[in-house]
Amino acid sequence: MPHLTFWFELASTYSYLSAMRIGPLASAAGVEVVWCPFLLGPIFQTQGWSTSPFNLYQAKGENMWRDMERQAKKHGLATITRPTDFPQNGLLAARLATIGADTPWGPDFVRSIYQAEFADGLNIADEVVLSECLTTVGQDGASLIKQAKTDQSIKDQLRQTTEDAQVSGLFGAPSFTTDDGELFWGNDRLEDAIEWALA
Amino acid sequence: MPHLTFWFELASTYSYLSAMRIGPLASAAGVEVVWCPFLLGPIFQTQGWSTSPFNLYQAKGENMWRDMERQAKKHGLATITRPTDFPQNGLLAARLATIGADTPWGPDFVRSIYQAEFADGLNIADEVVLSECLTTVGQDGASLIKQAKTDQSIKDQLRQTTEDAQVSGLFGAPSFTTDDGELFWGNDRLEDAIEWALA
Repeated sequence: MPHLTFWFELASTYSYLSAMRIGPLASAAGVEVVWCPFLLGPIFQTQGWSTSPFNLYQAKGENMWRDMERQAKKHGLATITRPTDFPQNGLLAARLATIGADTPWGPDFVRSIYQAEFADGLNIADEVVLSECLTTVGQDGASLIKQAKTDQSIKDQLRQTTEDAQVSGLFGAPSFTTDDGELFWGNDRLEDAIEWALA
Repeated sequence: MPHLTFWFELASTYSYLSAMRIGPLASAAGVEVVWCPFLLGPIFQTQGWSTSPFNLYQAKGENMWRDMERQAKKHGLATITRPTDFPQNGLLAARLATIGADTPWGPDFVRSIYQAEFADGLNIADEVVLSECLTTVGQDGASLIKQAKTDQSIKDQLRQTTEDAQVSGLFGAPSFTTDDGELFWGNDRLEDAIEWALA
């Protein structure tokens, strides 16, 4: 079965849309999704950005939130709740998603985080929120959060994935890469990326 | 008939895709397109950019050109030829498009410019190229180029349109606005914008 690597950043709005959409679309097409959490912050920093471009460029940011409202409605997702802080600190969430990356509960956990963040308006840097997301998918929140905070191999793995993302030419999230190295950027390219993976 | 204002910059790659697609889509939907050339340069300058973000951010630029190749193929357009210089100086072309904006030959002229620029790899700052585009649509190249270079009201109109774009919250091209003031950014939103105009 062909693979599609789904690169997502947990503070990214458009990654949320793809996380909610990719499962059924890839499954129907017969493509296996590799869920790949990474950090956009270090990549933005090399581009000279200290925060999200949606904050740096006001008109672009305003349009993004309005577009998210329209897109969520279009795709049958919950109404968008703008988080009080944006972008949120998704480091601990990304480490937990790294632990979950190759597990059966990983994708559901990622969707649960995004749901908390962009539908429920919760803070995903909050361990209570993350613990509830883990409980939702049948996992032991306290134990996994402890591992995410202390296990050096998990921290190293996330750092390595972020370096791999940059080496692969990624500059934003979500992105998709195929087995033959084709790079697609943005939720709007999800369908095209799946089609490419099949070709 | 509902309107959709199509804001385009003649040096913009994704504006090219929309210029080639919008006619049949809007016509089939029963939406009247208002062709609105503007200059992105002054808007980019207020965002602190001295050139296109596709030049400022290398990975983003590389992906854009690859994406353009894929998108052109997907939409049945000619193979993309990357212009030697990007972005091109589209000032004179935009003034000519301003003259043509409310004429029957305007849309064909705009498509002809984009075809020259991104399919044929020609320089749209070159008056010979622009003159040929005008001839293609049955107009007198020398006379219109002279008007575009000397008629202050045309220069003022383009400047005003660019100011209107910024006031309307535009930050990139192509963009689409509806009669009720909804703003859509990017060729990927063309279909959504047409649907919104109908609602």
